Amino acid sequence: MNIDDLAKGIIAGERRALARAITLVESGRADHRAAAAELLAKLPTDLQALRIGLSGTPGVGKSTFIESFGMMLTAQGMRVAVLAVDPSSARSGGSILGDKTRMDRLSREPRAFIRPSPSQTHLGGVARRSREAVRLCEAAGFDVVLIETVGVGQSETVVAEMSDAFVLLLAPAGGDELQGVKRGIMEIADLIVINKADGDLKSTAARTRADYAGALRLLRKRPQDPEGFPRATAVSAMEEDGLEETWAALQELTDWRRAQGFWDHTRAAQARYWFEQDVKQRLLAQLETPQAKDDLARLSDAVAEGARDPAEAAAEFVSGLRAD
Amino acid sequence: MNIDDLAKGIIAGERRALARAITLVESGRADHRAAAAELLAKLPTDLQALRIGLSGTPGVGKSTFIESFGMMLTAQGMRVAVLAVDPSSARSGGSILGDKTRMDRLSREPRAFIRPSPSQTHLGGVARRSREAVRLCEAAGFDVVLIETVGVGQSETVVAEMSDAFVLLLAPAGGDELQGVKRGIMEIADLIVINKADGDLKSTAARTRADYAGALRLLRKRPQDPEGFPRATAVSAMEEDGLEETWAALQELTDWRRAQGFWDHTRAAQARYWFEQDVKQRLLAQLETPQAKDDLARLSDAVAEGARDPAEAAAEFVSGLRAD
Repeated sequence: MNIDDLAKGIIAGERRALARAITLVESGRADHRAAAAELLAKLPTDLQALRIGLSGTPGVGKSTFIESFGMMLTAQGMRVAVLAVDPSSARSGGSILGDKTRMDRLSREPRAFIRPSPSQTHLGGVARRSREAVRLCEAAGFDVVLIETVGVGQSETVVAEMSDAFVLLLAPAGGDELQGVKRGIMEIADLIVINKADGDLKSTAARTRADYAGALRLLRKRPQDPEGFPRATAVSAMEEDGLEETWAALQELTDWRRAQGFWDHTRAAQARYWFEQDVKQRLLAQLETPQAKDDLARLSDAVAEGARDPAEAAAEFVSGLRAD
Repeated sequence: MNIDDLAKGIIAGERRALARAITLVESGRADHRAAAAELLAKLPTDLQALRIGLSGTPGVGKSTFIESFGMMLTAQGMRVAVLAVDPSSARSGGSILGDKTRMDRLSREPRAFIRPSPSQTHLGGVARRSREAVRLCEAAGFDVVLIETVGVGQSETVVAEMSDAFVLLLAPAGGDELQGVKRGIMEIADLIVINKADGDLKSTAARTRADYAGALRLLRKRPQDPEGFPRATAVSAMEEDGLEETWAALQELTDWRRAQGFWDHTRAAQARYWFEQDVKQRLLAQLETPQAKDDLARLSDAVAEGARDPAEAAAEFVSGLRAD
């Protein structure tokens, strides 16, 4: 593989080159890592897509939303890439976005690029790979990069830390139903989109939207939120209703953040965050060997039973690591 | 210092022995650490206090609440210890609960024990020291241990992970005022107590209570929450009004958790958590040397400016650490 040719292909917006480059950054092989680093160094850094993180539990209509929302953007002339971050695939070997037929129209749209989540990588690797895939899409000139996650474990944080705006997709529901919304997610959502605002559910969706709008106003205010944000909208992805309002809200938010300096500030802070995360992950990788895992499990059981003190067991474990 | 005598004094409930033992576990000196470990090993592990975490921003009336609440409990014959967790003192050298005169009555009450936060320790040390102080209070036969935090940085998480129940104290406020409630705090509160429900603020407090009760019902449901929790109550610590209802709510919650097995399960999970945290903290301590900090700051700046790639800079840093 010629790295110069690959870089030129990406810059020219060739889909095949982009796909090959993402496969390269996904690889854990040492020679592939070196080639990926060389490739990334050859790409321009001045192109910025709007990076939109998107989360929602299964059944909320995420694929339908991405398809309808993506089609609306491409119809306006924009180029849209869809990536998936799925740390759960590290355990299950599964994959989200794997079935492109769920997004039949968008996958055939020339201005769109859909990349399923690879399986069998660990969480730190998932984050690094996804960040690099986003950079490749930006270098390829995409206007919008949608980064989808199923919301397992820490994946929303991972996605939020590589996004300019974060969208949480919810289904209409009564006030006391909780739809599996996870700890902390309300803190990072810039926009809550209630999907399925159609047919019998239309009025429930409107009420759900109002409930969340009220709760968010009460519980949250951050410097990077302009007046009126975090906002909640109601859409029907199926009937393609409310999508333009949702896009307008995202534009209003990100235009304000650009004008106020939060955009650049957040991107710089995200870069620092990933640098520090990568450093820590490399240090903590010492805990991932089979021997270390066995020792940790044994000591953790003793601590949980009250037979050992946490601090004293930790001291024993770490001095054992250093002696190796 | 004779460790056997100290252990006997603690078990006999002698305040002076308890105070000396807490000073010992607070020390960072190697010989003191060894003596502290020896002491902890001599103490019984079967006595369990109700550990109540308590957070609230300055001005909310936390000292008044602790004094009134503590006096109510001691009047019922209970022994109450009050500890403070204050990671911010690591930077500022300040101390919360430092001024015992803020709790004039409680500090003179024989059934109460108040311990200010020590200054000048780092966050991991604060957590370890606090856990050990809680254990000492339990061995000394206290019925309730109140663990206060000012809510700076990660201190609520630190306190929640060593508490059986977590109380967030708030002031009455209009729906759109946010009182500096921090990210994630709503996720860990078991009980929200609106203080200052007296005089002109009484009706505002009732409305604030209802607002939070509604928002919490909408946004949160956890397996360890019985029907009706997380709950919000309104109190006047000054007029000693609503305190019994607050105590009844805490008892209802913790009785249910005991009966359902969540109490033991949570304590075992907390022990595992602290073991893992201690292990990680010891590994990450490599980043705290002056040389490491200089290198990290330089690389982080380069990454924020876009001059270096996060993953590549992290790889360089960690290989530098190993070469040392």
